[in-house]
Amino acid sequence: MDFHYDLKTRELQEDLLDFMDGHVHPAEATFHEQLAALEDRWAWDSVPVLAELRVEARRRGLWNVFLPDEHGGRLTNLQYAPLAEITGRSIQLAPAVLNCAAPDTGNMEVLARFGTAAQKEQWLEPLLNGEIRSAFAMTEPQVASSDATNIECRIERDGDSYVLNGRKWWITGAMNPNAKVFIVMGKTDPSADRHRQQSMILVPRDAAGVGIERGMHVLGYDDHDHGGHAEMSFTDVRVPAANLIGGEGDGFAIAQARLGPGRIHHCMRSIGVAERAIELMCQRAGDRIAFGKKLSEQGVIRDWIAESRVRIEQLRLLVLKTAWLMDTVGNKGAHSEIQAIKIATPKTVQWILDKAIQTHGAGGLSQDFPLASAYAGIRTLRFADGPDEVHSNALAKTELRRHASGAGR
Amino acid sequence: MDFHYDLKTRELQEDLLDFMDGHVHPAEATFHEQLAALEDRWAWDSVPVLAELRVEARRRGLWNVFLPDEHGGRLTNLQYAPLAEITGRSIQLAPAVLNCAAPDTGNMEVLARFGTAAQKEQWLEPLLNGEIRSAFAMTEPQVASSDATNIECRIERDGDSYVLNGRKWWITGAMNPNAKVFIVMGKTDPSADRHRQQSMILVPRDAAGVGIERGMHVLGYDDHDHGGHAEMSFTDVRVPAANLIGGEGDGFAIAQARLGPGRIHHCMRSIGVAERAIELMCQRAGDRIAFGKKLSEQGVIRDWIAESRVRIEQLRLLVLKTAWLMDTVGNKGAHSEIQAIKIATPKTVQWILDKAIQTHGAGGLSQDFPLASAYAGIRTLRFADGPDEVHSNALAKTELRRHASGAGR
Amino acid sequence: MDFHYDLKTRELQEDLLDFMDGHVHPAEATFHEQLAALEDRWAWDSVPVLAELRVEARRRGLWNVFLPDEHGGRLTNLQYAPLAEITGRSIQLAPAVLNCAAPDTGNMEVLARFGTAAQKEQWLEPLLNGEIRSAFAMTEPQVASSDATNIECRIERDGDSYVLNGRKWWITGAMNPNAKVFIVMGKTDPSADRHRQQSMILVPRDAAGVGIERGMHVLGYDDHDHGGHAEMSFTDVRVPAANLIGGEGDGFAIAQARLGPGRIHHCMRSIGVAERAIELMCQRAGDRIAFGKKLSEQGVIRDWIAESRVRIEQLRLLVLKTAWLMDTVGNKGAHSEIQAIKIATPKTVQWILDKAIQTHGAGGLSQDFPLASAYAGIRTLRFADGPDEVHSNALAKTELRRHASGAGR
Amino acid sequence: MDFHYDLKTRELQEDLLDFMDGHVHPAEATFHEQLAALEDRWAWDSVPVLAELRVEARRRGLWNVFLPDEHGGRLTNLQYAPLAEITGRSIQLAPAVLNCAAPDTGNMEVLARFGTAAQKEQWLEPLLNGEIRSAFAMTEPQVASSDATNIECRIERDGDSYVLNGRKWWITGAMNPNAKVFIVMGKTDPSADRHRQQSMILVPRDAAGVGIERGMHVLGYDDHDHGGHAEMSFTDVRVPAANLIGGEGDGFAIAQARLGPGRIHHCMRSIGVAERAIELMCQRAGDRIAFGKKLSEQGVIRDWIAESRVRIEQLRLLVLKTAWLMDTVGNKGAHSEIQAIKIATPKTVQWILDKAIQTHGAGGLSQDFPLASAYAGIRTLRFADGPDEVHSNALAKTELRRHASGAGR
Repeated sequence: MDFHYDLKTRELQEDLLDFMDGHVHPAEATFHEQLAALEDRWAWDSVPVLAELRVEARRRGLWNVFLPDEHGGRLTNLQYAPLAEITGRSIQLAPAVLNCAAPDTGNMEVLARFGTAAQKEQWLEPLLNGEIRSAFAMTEPQVASSDATNIECRIERDGDSYVLNGRKWWITGAMNPNAKVFIVMGKTDPSADRHRQQSMILVPRDAAGVGIERGMHVLGYDDHDHGGHAEMSFTDVRVPAANLIGGEGDGFAIAQARLGPGRIHHCMRSIGVAERAIELMCQRAGDRIAFGKKLSEQGVIRDWIAESRVRIEQLRLLVLKTAWLMDTVGNKGAHSEIQAIKIATPKTVQWILDKAIQTHGAGGLSQDFPLASAYAGIRTLRFADGPDEVHSNALAKTELRRHASGAGR
Repeated sequence: MDFHYDLKTRELQEDLLDFMDGHVHPAEATFHEQLAALEDRWAWDSVPVLAELRVEARRRGLWNVFLPDEHGGRLTNLQYAPLAEITGRSIQLAPAVLNCAAPDTGNMEVLARFGTAAQKEQWLEPLLNGEIRSAFAMTEPQVASSDATNIECRIERDGDSYVLNGRKWWITGAMNPNAKVFIVMGKTDPSADRHRQQSMILVPRDAAGVGIERGMHVLGYDDHDHGGHAEMSFTDVRVPAANLIGGEGDGFAIAQARLGPGRIHHCMRSIGVAERAIELMCQRAGDRIAFGKKLSEQGVIRDWIAESRVRIEQLRLLVLKTAWLMDTVGNKGAHSEIQAIKIATPKTVQWILDKAIQTHGAGGLSQDFPLASAYAGIRTLRFADGPDEVHSNALAKTELRRHASGAGR
Repeated sequence: MDFHYDLKTRELQEDLLDFMDGHVHPAEATFHEQLAALEDRWAWDSVPVLAELRVEARRRGLWNVFLPDEHGGRLTNLQYAPLAEITGRSIQLAPAVLNCAAPDTGNMEVLARFGTAAQKEQWLEPLLNGEIRSAFAMTEPQVASSDATNIECRIERDGDSYVLNGRKWWITGAMNPNAKVFIVMGKTDPSADRHRQQSMILVPRDAAGVGIERGMHVLGYDDHDHGGHAEMSFTDVRVPAANLIGGEGDGFAIAQARLGPGRIHHCMRSIGVAERAIELMCQRAGDRIAFGKKLSEQGVIRDWIAESRVRIEQLRLLVLKTAWLMDTVGNKGAHSEIQAIKIATPKTVQWILDKAIQTHGAGGLSQDFPLASAYAGIRTLRFADGPDEVHSNALAKTELRRHASGAGR
Repeated sequence: MDFHYDLKTRELQEDLLDFMDGHVHPAEATFHEQLAALEDRWAWDSVPVLAELRVEARRRGLWNVFLPDEHGGRLTNLQYAPLAEITGRSIQLAPAVLNCAAPDTGNMEVLARFGTAAQKEQWLEPLLNGEIRSAFAMTEPQVASSDATNIECRIERDGDSYVLNGRKWWITGAMNPNAKVFIVMGKTDPSADRHRQQSMILVPRDAAGVGIERGMHVLGYDDHDHGGHAEMSFTDVRVPAANLIGGEGDGFAIAQARLGPGRIHHCMRSIGVAERAIELMCQRAGDRIAFGKKLSEQGVIRDWIAESRVRIEQLRLLVLKTAWLMDTVGNKGAHSEIQAIKIATPKTVQWILDKAIQTHGAGGLSQDFPLASAYAGIRTLRFADGPDEVHSNALAKTELRRHASGAGR
């Protein structure tokens, strides 16, 4: 057991921190100004400063670092995780600068792992180059999508094509006109086994019958700064049969495979968000005076700060261990831990953000600090990939089984 | 001891519920549509449906019901409180329809109680008639405004005028062009005793030197549906000396007097918000199916529902008792209880909203349900009139004093 | 709505407080010394100081004040509740001094309400006179007794007798040799309707076949100071048929009737416990110095004190309202509120005790303060009359039903 | 970074688990029976079964495994930690069987590290052989001992002797007549610098003037099963000057050095307690039926189980990392982490125990399961080495300093 990051990681951390301090953090204000000036509110990745920063990121070898080594990348999950944390400190800008932003990362992994050569050439290449963006269309408005058997979107074979019909929402990034392709989950065979009914298919944005209906809001934010969350309709959308990813019925398995690394990324970025919040909380507490003393001398605020530190240290270790498990025994072997970090992370980070906001007074809820928007973003994670309660339930069943068999020790 | 609402209250509850069911709830969607269509995003009280509803409210004798009986109104705090709760069920529309919306209610009370005849004629009358709106300018961006001695805005006498200089923010309602007058808190004598330095003065919107700088956001909401929250500047703003409310140095005392009823109103409306949330949570849980059973059969969700009911019942009684104390022994006698409900209410209602949101899945955070915007609104109450922590600290000091003197029993 | 205690209540509060200050509190130490000197550890009600105090209590008209007015007593639930709170401040002594201690109070109510003249003469009279004690035998070790259909104890008719066989535990007070009679719940007809299978019967302590097996511990306490909690066996115990309370199959209904007032008493005494804890917490915080300042100047401890006050004020009002409901609309009409206070009270009081203990340092857990034993006692209430979770579940079902029918408003 | 236990650790875990399953767990009941039969209630380490198990532990090389390798032992903190966890599964017996029980472990470390050759021969040898026991006398009844400057016990030089006067309490293990020596902390020079006033000295149990006044209780337990917690008096106790440990004024530094490993041990044993609790909770939930289904099918109980797993996984990793830090950068380098685990562990484990108790119904609070006594034991850890709040405050100051200096990243 060894809690040191390895040499490669430490070097990359240094490189990335240097890049963050020298380029990313200083550009945050410009990014928001340029966003505000966009003609198409959703075309966020067309702002000039992003392009400039991306050139620099590539130059420094910080491009696509998320990509697992077995798929042409060069880092393990455990090596990438602390880098993802650092990008979380500038959550709206840094991941995009490094081409490491969701949902493209997950989509690129899916294509790298399950895509055909043709699919890779058509979609993975431009994604890896940051030329286009993508979205992942799974959640549906009418049903509890945490239960995959509920999915109502149909993907039906018709000659050399598949025809899609269905409705999706919370399709993150899809409002961006540069999101050129969607990976859509639907049912090819509703009569098959529970987890063999679903398939995934690539749908170009410009396919006939694709409707971008509206953008969903999250606590008042439309999240145009990363392409919003679209409600979409698919009406008799016809795509070539070759657009299917894997085979018919593979949809559920691919979704599961996509989840693991995605969770690590989300969780580590969230920890970065929390670290930034702790930093801001400490600075505010050190600056602000009320009733004759600094907030930092107030016991209650100190208690929040200590508790934040205690919680985040524990959480980070579990996320890192999960990354390590994925690297050493695979997604399946890390199943319980992936569930555990999914449950623990948003709850912990939301708590810290709430306290950081409270320390800032009403300003903490406003556009003047990154805390409120971070709060909204983290809050959505309690639903992402299904509500926490579904995962708690599953985790408990595993635990009960373990002790029922007397193997509890 | 008697927990029945009195006859007058019960009749008014019936009347109001009848009006809500017949007119207000059915108009909610229209209100939002008309809001969205406004040319001036902030001129919320100019939407046609509001005017129509107000006519009906007057006709039914439900206009200005907030006004305490000693100031020309007809209801005690205890009688008004359950009506305020009912308006909380349609928090964005109902209070305005009844001309019972903050911050005008507090401002009208100040004018009714401390205003000169001239001030009443000029400002109170049109406010009571719903012709204009007002704002209350106390909080400042550079200092912790919970400590009134921190206030930096200056109100200086110059001949027959006062001249104001300072900066304010979170001035609720002030973005609305129809907010024709501001009650501004500033210091007339920084060398006076701690609580005699401050004064309040009426400043017309169109006075030279008044700057509406920007709207503050709450989470992602700009709250244009009730006039937003302005950051304002006052630069050599000159108003007649007769605009002073009360005498020089009375500002702190007037602010305190304004707080009591305001807290009751806020708290009862918040309880109405919570009741609506519980109702929506129950309905959603009864409708939605996941993994083969209704959410309402899930133990965890039942636990949330029960806990919500248990908490809200306790909270309501304390708010009602506080109203009763204000009616019987006055603001001062109700001091500790006013602090207690200020602390308890937002925490409790925020918890309930969070669970209601979680029950709704991601939709709960969106514009499709009133839960997310309610959450943002309630969250601000943990800062309103000073952060909860300031009130907790004061409440504890009272408690410690009580037991130190051996009078604890 | 009126939050004043009525005149009778206020007079009795004065009388009782006078008695507590003049006699009960000063005798607490003696009570514990005499308890420690007992030959039979369990014969707690034989200590001399108790007899002396009881004489004084009778003289002052403070005897049996718990008894509802419709059964020969003179107070409503609402009038008695604040007196129960006061006795909670000396939880181990005061209720017994006033002959208002559980489980005798509940048993006396059952006899007053459902007993025959002969049963009253034989058992109720000596109980009302404080000559004997009693116990209530419902819970069983092998099954979840919160579900009354689980009860395994059999009560079988045999000629003019009933014959009992079964095992019970947590029979509070039963270790005391002066607990001369047990009200035992068992099944007379396992094939009847779910809630008509059970009956209650009076069993004298000296009946053949009654076994007092052992005393159960609560945390480390055996609770000998109120007769412990026995595990008991009933082996072919034969009692006259006339010992049945009510008719066959009435057991469940009687148990339900017994619950309502019992909950009010428990809850109000618990609030008294909490008030005592807050007082001790404040005094300790005011006395103790660490790192150069009093604990009472520490923000975290102030936060505990304020939060304790805020919580207990809310809780008391709900318990009082429940008492009022029972007086005005009966046990059934107060059903949801009785569940609510059952859930809310132990949780709230346990939290307060935990903070009071923490304020006292390690001493808070010891025999030097009444906090630790109070903590153990309150902790049991989360199980008494069934675990909280059962009541939460039932409360949620009521709430869900209310909103499903559209009557939610 | 590597989360595997090393080979040596894994082998020792196997050995220890084998010993636990084959010998320790099966002897638990016997241990309690023999304890109950003791003539001297406090002489717990004289029970026969303990001696037998110790022979076996030595034979298997599981004796004194706690001892750090730099002091003659053979394991690092990181290697010992998972063994300590396993002993926590049988918290009352296993640590003693392995001669790895507090407070002897800490005392042996102090002697190994700071003792003279003579001190080692006289006291360390018999302790390492398990022939005698010891106690550590620091806490005082009259003052907040978390602030070392408060200590009132005096150690005064008089010729070749030191003379002690003072009062101590919560001296764990001291009621045991076989606790032959006490390490006593007192002030040799109250006028010295804040952290140079204190010294530590060895006091034999039979020294004249040593008074064992009484045993302190913890939530009703007198903890005689590990020698209780004594209140002690030292009245003109004279010991040779050679009994001083280190030099005059070294007391504070030695106390600090003693803390680090002690915390790791406490925390890891506590995690073992929690794991046992989770196991029992799962088994009970799987066995018990109420209202027609197993408790393990109840959503609320599943939520407790999942939450327990999620919390304990995070906590363990932080404790292990702290052990690793102590091994690699020493106590000082691990300072913040030692504080963090001190705060996090009792809170987390107490929560889990509370839920495990609740799952067991009233039985969970009784002597029939190890949960209630474990709860009492864990509760004391929130005071051990000072209340959590003192450590939170210190941790927050470190965090605030880090960000004030701009080194927060």
